Amino acid sequence: MFIIGERINSTRKRVKEALANRDVQYVQNDARLQADAGAGAIDLNAAALVGQEKETLCWLVDVVQDVVSVPLCIDSPDAKAARAGLERVKNRPVFLNSISLEKNRYPTFLPLVKDFDASVVALCADDKYGMPKNFEDKLAVATALLDGLIRDGVDVTRIYVDCLVFPVGTDSQCSRALLAAISAVMQKYPGVHTVAGLSNVSYGLPERKLLNRTLLAMAIGAGMDAAILDPLDTELMATMYAAEVLAGRDEFCAEYIGAHRRGVLKPPEA
Amino acid sequence: MFIIGERINSTRKRVKEALANRDVQYVQNDARLQADAGAGAIDLNAAALVGQEKETLCWLVDVVQDVVSVPLCIDSPDAKAARAGLERVKNRPVFLNSISLEKNRYPTFLPLVKDFDASVVALCADDKYGMPKNFEDKLAVATALLDGLIRDGVDVTRIYVDCLVFPVGTDSQCSRALLAAISAVMQKYPGVHTVAGLSNVSYGLPERKLLNRTLLAMAIGAGMDAAILDPLDTELMATMYAAEVLAGRDEFCAEYIGAHRRGVLKPPEA
Repeated sequence: MFIIGERINSTRKRVKEALANRDVQYVQNDARLQADAGAGAIDLNAAALVGQEKETLCWLVDVVQDVVSVPLCIDSPDAKAARAGLERVKNRPVFLNSISLEKNRYPTFLPLVKDFDASVVALCADDKYGMPKNFEDKLAVATALLDGLIRDGVDVTRIYVDCLVFPVGTDSQCSRALLAAISAVMQKYPGVHTVAGLSNVSYGLPERKLLNRTLLAMAIGAGMDAAILDPLDTELMATMYAAEVLAGRDEFCAEYIGAHRRGVLKPPEA
Repeated sequence: MFIIGERINSTRKRVKEALANRDVQYVQNDARLQADAGAGAIDLNAAALVGQEKETLCWLVDVVQDVVSVPLCIDSPDAKAARAGLERVKNRPVFLNSISLEKNRYPTFLPLVKDFDASVVALCADDKYGMPKNFEDKLAVATALLDGLIRDGVDVTRIYVDCLVFPVGTDSQCSRALLAAISAVMQKYPGVHTVAGLSNVSYGLPERKLLNRTLLAMAIGAGMDAAILDPLDTELMATMYAAEVLAGRDEFCAEYIGAHRRGVLKPPEA
């Protein structure tokens, strides 16, 4: 399971403040914690700092790569800011979050993928279906997006398809459709990756973390091999380790038993 | 999700004592608790009382059906004891646990299924493959068993196929095979049910309940619609409610929100 640590995101109030204040210690500490907890890449998002995104993102890249050696994931809706961030990143591979088939996104982000040989989160969104909720539309957009990226020279193993998570409280079939889409994409494109952010699923419902980690388990069961999540959420990570075992992806349960020895599998209160 | 409450099983030491002592209060209390916690049927097993199974099972049926109205599941490896138990059960439907393709089981248990119009747990086991661990063998045995039962006049909607849970600590691919078999059986035989006991999966590994409930979520994701479990395990039940939502089987999240209101979704310590 490949984990993209989601914590350094400017939509979180505490993070936005730290970025605005150029709080090196806060950002470096958070990056270290995520890497130590198992993040294979660290997402960096400064998009909420309107008018200062580019400079802030560049600063963020500099301070984070000073303290962690895991790959960075440049997360921006703005191609210019993303390019500036990507140029700053020393280590390879580098991740880009995200491309889609939307006409204001695909042509401006494809050159970034190519120029930096980036691994890329590919959102199932386009201008015809928007952000599709049902299985058929998700698969149609994913297929068009993957066929486009592959035709445009992106190696399939660099692509992390995000089939989009919606609040199940407003559409009882949307998670079922997501799981089916993950399974179909993994079967149709050998070597591709699937990824999801989880927390949107539980919007408006009680016990959100229970729903989020249960979705993680079910998505791993459907074949998903990456996630954008908070690796400091130990109950979520415990579910991830267990699901990896059950999906047959943890030979000799080595990761699971290692996590047990580090105390990660125990509920926080035990 | 259809839950068969597993607690009144003579392989558990406390239960065996209660059965040996004809402890009416213990057994009735446990049955009530399971029914209140959401069991759709209550498994009754007296097989560990060697030489006294039949009488004990009949006593057990009598005292349990005095206090709960949910269906009973007669669980015995002995066709004569099972018949005696089935004859005592007043309510319909009645469940039988279990038939398989083994030659010492199929011909003696099929008449019970027919005579009592029983819903039946059908174990993926035969004399050629034994208890198969890989996907192909599981599906081969499940197919032969289902084809046999259907040919012999058993309605497919009465059959609960158990694809067999093995310890993942000794075979890292066995749970993956189980999930694939569940999915294949559900697709191949519309109207059939799949069921599993979960706890065997975690044998020999730490944090067993974490693995058990994660398997439940993944199996529900694969289409499983019944389980033999302890409905008093609130964390397991919380995962079940969440997985049902995410599998699109809980319209308007009504069951989930009801469970939340009853306090079932909260971890025990919170």
